[in-house]
Amino acid sequence: MASTAPPLLLLHRLPEFSLPFVSVLQTEFTVLDPLADPPDPSFPALSSSARVVLCVGPSPLTSDDLDRYNAVECVVGSSAGINHIDLAACRRRGVRVTSGGDAFSDDVADYAVGLAIDVLRRVSAADRFVRAGSWPVQKEYALGSKVGGKRVGIVGLGGIGLRVAKRFEGFGCIISYNSRHVKSQVPYTYCANLVDLASNNEILVVCCALTNDTYHVINKDVMTALGKNGIIVNIARGAVIDEKELVELLVRGEIGGAGLDVYEHEPHVPDEMLKLDNVVLSPHRAFLTPDSFAALEKVVVGNIRAFFSEKPLLTEIELDI
Amino acid sequence: MASTAPPLLLLHRLPEFSLPFVSVLQTEFTVLDPLADPPDPSFPALSSSARVVLCVGPSPLTSDDLDRYNAVECVVGSSAGINHIDLAACRRRGVRVTSGGDAFSDDVADYAVGLAIDVLRRVSAADRFVRAGSWPVQKEYALGSKVGGKRVGIVGLGGIGLRVAKRFEGFGCIISYNSRHVKSQVPYTYCANLVDLASNNEILVVCCALTNDTYHVINKDVMTALGKNGIIVNIARGAVIDEKELVELLVRGEIGGAGLDVYEHEPHVPDEMLKLDNVVLSPHRAFLTPDSFAALEKVVVGNIRAFFSEKPLLTEIELDI
Repeated sequence: MASTAPPLLLLHRLPEFSLPFVSVLQTEFTVLDPLADPPDPSFPALSSSARVVLCVGPSPLTSDDLDRYNAVECVVGSSAGINHIDLAACRRRGVRVTSGGDAFSDDVADYAVGLAIDVLRRVSAADRFVRAGSWPVQKEYALGSKVGGKRVGIVGLGGIGLRVAKRFEGFGCIISYNSRHVKSQVPYTYCANLVDLASNNEILVVCCALTNDTYHVINKDVMTALGKNGIIVNIARGAVIDEKELVELLVRGEIGGAGLDVYEHEPHVPDEMLKLDNVVLSPHRAFLTPDSFAALEKVVVGNIRAFFSEKPLLTEIELDI
Repeated sequence: MASTAPPLLLLHRLPEFSLPFVSVLQTEFTVLDPLADPPDPSFPALSSSARVVLCVGPSPLTSDDLDRYNAVECVVGSSAGINHIDLAACRRRGVRVTSGGDAFSDDVADYAVGLAIDVLRRVSAADRFVRAGSWPVQKEYALGSKVGGKRVGIVGLGGIGLRVAKRFEGFGCIISYNSRHVKSQVPYTYCANLVDLASNNEILVVCCALTNDTYHVINKDVMTALGKNGIIVNIARGAVIDEKELVELLVRGEIGGAGLDVYEHEPHVPDEMLKLDNVVLSPHRAFLTPDSFAALEKVVVGNIRAFFSEKPLLTEIELDI
């Protein structure tokens, strides 16, 4: 009997939007939910023998969690950035980790370009202007800045960064990038230093993972090098940018503008930003479309199935930290 | 003496934003301004012998104007669309007409793509949501719709339409188009019928000139064919779309959304639109950046110089109407 019973699948505090997933998973797995209401009396016993834990959404998975679920061999993550999972602890315990892979990459890249156009051409500001009834009254309107042909610097040329680059190429933009390693197969200029990347470009798009190495890597020096005609787009993680410095530079007009989908202390957005006309603010949703969910479901279910059938995981992370 | 005097250049009601032009032109031409304050006493005599009239901005140039300025041989227009110039009257009188050519095409195409992303991914709506302080309170947020890979139908594949197509290609979108003529050199599918174009696509981008043939050519049937998952972007002229029908379809949710830079009765924007969350509204400014002005100045001055030196005009319009 035991060999044909559905494998145990442990959930780790799932946000509401992931509920459709669960019903799919329940057809194949015995799904263990720590937040079940009413609580599942078999949870304590079963959770200690579950080999896979699924983490959808931003809830941290800590070393303590892994202590509690001590049979876990694989953490199936669901986002592009997996900084909320304690990767060092996973590595120490020999726990494998998967990410959402490229399920969200197209959507995030689309959104990054949308934010850049919006900031430069003041699209949301124009929408506010028209909705406020200002057009018939105040006929002239502050000009934006051209997008086509601009120099775009990309921080992190992974699945998302590459897609951002490809999109900007269609606008006649010139692409350069910074990344952990030089990518020999891309036609873009590598720039080893972020201050140089910023000073050589007019649009800086932050696409890298948040790690110990990238925390606040976009600091005052980098942003000052970008300058008052430069704009910054962040669709990665808030803490890649030193947000306090960003706010000050924006308020003083020392950088040209920002399109932000992520913040250091979400859902908190610094008050000063809410008043600025040269920023476009978005509630961490660059990755969110019905299509990206469908793609994610495929990756998540695929990884869980692969684990239990001892096949290669689809989107395993290299734990070289 | 007469042969070396600067040629006469007649202005036709210039909007304020074109003033920087005038100072450039005054270095080469005797500029005649009907709105000069105080009035120029030599205007009536000189204007009747001016061979070139410059039209910047949307003020109509009518048959009556041409009657008054009866020595005019060339109307130098400055916009991409020149529906405000009475082209039939120009043709009858053998008056040549130039447009702004592609001075604005990149900027308009950039903006068109920006509007499409904004409508589909709800960028301006997200910005409103964050600025209103709703994020910490109301954590879940209505999803938008994917951009990458969508089918894009372009109405009018001229300088702007081609640039819109090229940009959407970078997003992995599939392009088809309707145009007066099949363009044999482009890799996009031609569609002779607008209802078919709309029903085969999810994004319809209106890029054609406004002429008698294109007035209200985007009618109820076309928009209904686009359907409730389709969006329309208009950066051409308001009257290419039957705006009354557009508003009704939007209000009833029978088309998915709209990104509009132009309207039938500018600066009037239908009240119903101001309340909708699935539209992005912009005050006819897709063409407006400092860069497009610089490019336009080149085209305008180039056309005027070409006329007086009897060289080919840079951006002459074919008056086949």
